[in-house]
Amino acid sequence: MKKPLILVTNDDSISAPGIRALIEVMNELGTVVVVAPDSPQSAMGHAITINSMLHLNKVSAEGAAITEYTCSGTPVDCVKFAVNEILKQKPDLCVSGVNHGSNSSINVIYSGTMSAAVEAGIEGIPAIGFSLLDYDWNADFETFKPYIKQIALEVLEKGLPENVVLNVNFPKKKKNELKGIKICRQAKAIWAEKFDKRKTPQGKDYYWLTGEFINLDKGQDTDEWALGQGYISIVPVQFDMTAHHAIQQLNNWNL
Amino acid sequence: MKKPLILVTNDDSISAPGIRALIEVMNELGTVVVVAPDSPQSAMGHAITINSMLHLNKVSAEGAAITEYTCSGTPVDCVKFAVNEILKQKPDLCVSGVNHGSNSSINVIYSGTMSAAVEAGIEGIPAIGFSLLDYDWNADFETFKPYIKQIALEVLEKGLPENVVLNVNFPKKKKNELKGIKICRQAKAIWAEKFDKRKTPQGKDYYWLTGEFINLDKGQDTDEWALGQGYISIVPVQFDMTAHHAIQQLNNWNL
Repeated sequence: MKKPLILVTNDDSISAPGIRALIEVMNELGTVVVVAPDSPQSAMGHAITINSMLHLNKVSAEGAAITEYTCSGTPVDCVKFAVNEILKQKPDLCVSGVNHGSNSSINVIYSGTMSAAVEAGIEGIPAIGFSLLDYDWNADFETFKPYIKQIALEVLEKGLPENVVLNVNFPKKKKNELKGIKICRQAKAIWAEKFDKRKTPQGKDYYWLTGEFINLDKGQDTDEWALGQGYISIVPVQFDMTAHHAIQQLNNWNL
Repeated sequence: MKKPLILVTNDDSISAPGIRALIEVMNELGTVVVVAPDSPQSAMGHAITINSMLHLNKVSAEGAAITEYTCSGTPVDCVKFAVNEILKQKPDLCVSGVNHGSNSSINVIYSGTMSAAVEAGIEGIPAIGFSLLDYDWNADFETFKPYIKQIALEVLEKGLPENVVLNVNFPKKKKNELKGIKICRQAKAIWAEKFDKRKTPQGKDYYWLTGEFINLDKGQDTDEWALGQGYISIVPVQFDMTAHHAIQQLNNWNL
């Protein structure tokens, strides 16, 4: 059987331990090409770069085990570059992450990691975003490697439902505390923002965006619930954002 | 009756003719506060600014008819600033746009205009994004003002279904060519990217992201179809990205 071609990307930049762990696992499964941001691109959502130029740099030596590029753009730019300019074909799988921090619930919409996976999905490539609920640069990714491998193998073997990508989150748990994998829906949650107002040395106001995550959802079928219980959560994510259930109601409006 | 409080934002920046047209209409309907980017933020998707500081500047004089602020961040940052730092309350309505260019079909996911509306929706505020299928800075917004007013009034009166915001697109048509309004679903479409490769004066490669829009959807219930026929399209948009229909299928996997 031909080795699958696997595209690896992330939003924490090419030097993040999370992507290095992901590359190691993918190297066991296929031919790996990495195209990742040259600087951190967290919370970039589905941003693309159209008002400035982009740089692409090959950072691996010729003949290296893995081909690696950095891109000056967003995670979504990385996927577009990979498919259209580097590979000139669709990879068999795109994996993004492992993100340093949660992309569960509403975070999926702010996440550069997940937006890269969603972009691959839009382009018809089976795609998975992986995230660990630990912001620490030295977080323990080792524990989750067998799960990453298992989930990626299932997707390579079975494919994914049409127009669906996977959002996988790992709880910050030790191996013996993990309860397994749960397929979930996205919990309804919000960020309660707080702007941390400061002054420059010259006396001008500036702000840092901070916030507190608030889970509004008591359901036991959500990713937040599963993660809280020690499960790995998988949410199937779609990019048709139509609220189909609302169409009939709006048709009764006076428009 | 108390005048409604209306937040106006966009992604083309505060000086764009599209937002000026939107402000004019909203001024007839309520008390208007504008918080818009200080520079163009097209295609920023749902990006937020967490790795750099933010600036906020009041640009209208005290006692001016409308209170206006610029923000150095993304459209989503603007909404967060408005709600949490400026208004300190939820407005009765948030409108975003009028965007110079289409946000129909898959563009909804890349759009700063729509992400601002979606952010307002996440925060529980009735929200509408407006876009005109004309990239021209001097596009004719005048024709669409009665429709903007009509749609905004309906939302102020009836509210919106829970967790739903509206994506309104105007075709590039003259008044007498407009066929009315259609409630639609998001057409399935993609961008076929092309990277325009150039060289700096020093001989280093750089790229511009360009692309061609390809509608893959032949349905007559889509926004693309409606716009092509001369209708104004309204797509109800949700931010629960769960592919609920795929959950059962994934539960049968070997995980």
